[in-house]
Amino acid sequence: MRLIQFCHRGGEGGVRVGVEQAGGQGVIDLKAFDPSMPSTMREFLEMGEKGMDCAKRALSSGQHVVAQTDIRLLSPVTGPEKVVCVGMNYKDHCLEQNAPIPEEPIIFSKFPSTITGPYDDIIVPAESQEVDWEVELAFVIGRKGKHIKEEEALSYVAGFTVANDVSARDWQMKRNGKQWLLGKTFDTFCPLGPALVTTSALKDVHNLGVRCLVNGAAVQDSNTNQMIFRTEKLIAWVSQFVTLCPGDVFLTGTPPGVGVFRNPPVYLKIKSG
Amino acid sequence: MRLIQFCHRGGEGGVRVGVEQAGGQGVIDLKAFDPSMPSTMREFLEMGEKGMDCAKRALSSGQHVVAQTDIRLLSPVTGPEKVVCVGMNYKDHCLEQNAPIPEEPIIFSKFPSTITGPYDDIIVPAESQEVDWEVELAFVIGRKGKHIKEEEALSYVAGFTVANDVSARDWQMKRNGKQWLLGKTFDTFCPLGPALVTTSALKDVHNLGVRCLVNGAAVQDSNTNQMIFRTEKLIAWVSQFVTLCPGDVFLTGTPPGVGVFRNPPVYLKIKSG
Repeated sequence: MRLIQFCHRGGEGGVRVGVEQAGGQGVIDLKAFDPSMPSTMREFLEMGEKGMDCAKRALSSGQHVVAQTDIRLLSPVTGPEKVVCVGMNYKDHCLEQNAPIPEEPIIFSKFPSTITGPYDDIIVPAESQEVDWEVELAFVIGRKGKHIKEEEALSYVAGFTVANDVSARDWQMKRNGKQWLLGKTFDTFCPLGPALVTTSALKDVHNLGVRCLVNGAAVQDSNTNQMIFRTEKLIAWVSQFVTLCPGDVFLTGTPPGVGVFRNPPVYLKIKSG
Repeated sequence: MRLIQFCHRGGEGGVRVGVEQAGGQGVIDLKAFDPSMPSTMREFLEMGEKGMDCAKRALSSGQHVVAQTDIRLLSPVTGPEKVVCVGMNYKDHCLEQNAPIPEEPIIFSKFPSTITGPYDDIIVPAESQEVDWEVELAFVIGRKGKHIKEEEALSYVAGFTVANDVSARDWQMKRNGKQWLLGKTFDTFCPLGPALVTTSALKDVHNLGVRCLVNGAAVQDSNTNQMIFRTEKLIAWVSQFVTLCPGDVFLTGTPPGVGVFRNPPVYLKIKSG
């Protein structure tokens, strides 16, 4: 299934969880199908199997369909407890910055307030002159767990989506005592979505194309088979430290092609007009 | 006022917001006083003045009082969007580690899942052999803002409380690519509370004793007048990057006396028996 969060264009009803129909013609409003369903993806995921089963029934029903043109698409998750990020998780991305391949995952975070819709504008702040892109495979936790074993890790994932770990390189690399947080956490620095694709709907999540286009040109073009630490390992690793819970978002690291390591460096600019 | 979160010892009713009576004899259950009041501090703070006014009326009423012995005290805030932390914010703490006095605040974060009650156990994880204490003045945001001016910053603060920025030094300083997050973010690594003391109830928040006792002995003993970047500056600084919202918790940095810089270093141990 492809799960989304959206608002009706008219504005009534606030945030809704939806299931996309095959071919993407329409979206089924889960709360219209079953008024006992919650409004947000985080609450939906907290319901576990019961929510997923309802989404399946809603999809089969073919009822309560809204046209894609009648919705405003949001990120598939908003307000998670955690946005967990992984640095240096593609070999070629380490090579492009002359950094050693890490022996353990390097974990940092963005505040949940960074999350914005997949087609919304990224706000380039006046405080940074070096705003860069980082396309990434993202996944979302579906059930609570601590000290999760690698063998069981995928059962803790609700699904996968796309993220951009937008980064102000000046703040990340030169200021704030080299702690990455500030450079990573300006408002809107985490476009997420469009859909949360449930794990069972993906044949092999570690063999997916990962591309980033800037002004129509591909600046990053790789495959998740290049990831150093894969989904299972990342879940096992991070859950040594923290209890993971439904809605937690993981960004799994970016492939090569970011702007800062180009010669000369290239950064995002404020859209004119 | 001294605002808290608690549960009734019997367990019924879940989380409640309370106002402490003078002298600390009893706590007024805000939702019992006015059933339209929310259950959590975050929601209470989102109500702004309306919530604060109700708390004042509840306190004056002297009704719906619960004895301190009949409640289980929680941290005054749970599940905030952000836990914003400041590093190296006391001169003497910089000196004890031979680090330069920072020219700008150094900002990092803990996940909200670190927050635990002020008298709850800190879980010393098997993954760390170097768990250290860091007592800190904390404050909680009371209203939404971005690009907040220093002159107006205090009006964005709901109140102040005490935190411990518990830190696994092995993970903070030697691993994870020197990114502090993992060492700072084990579950229970942010004891918070007991009360959120509203700003108006404090004469001078930058002239308060800050002490940490370990096994009854004072290991940290300083004053908030030693802070390098004060509350107003921290709010102005961080709100350049992110929109602050009600419930956001700031930890303002620790004074000298932490275990890692003692000779020999001293760390917290698992309680025996």
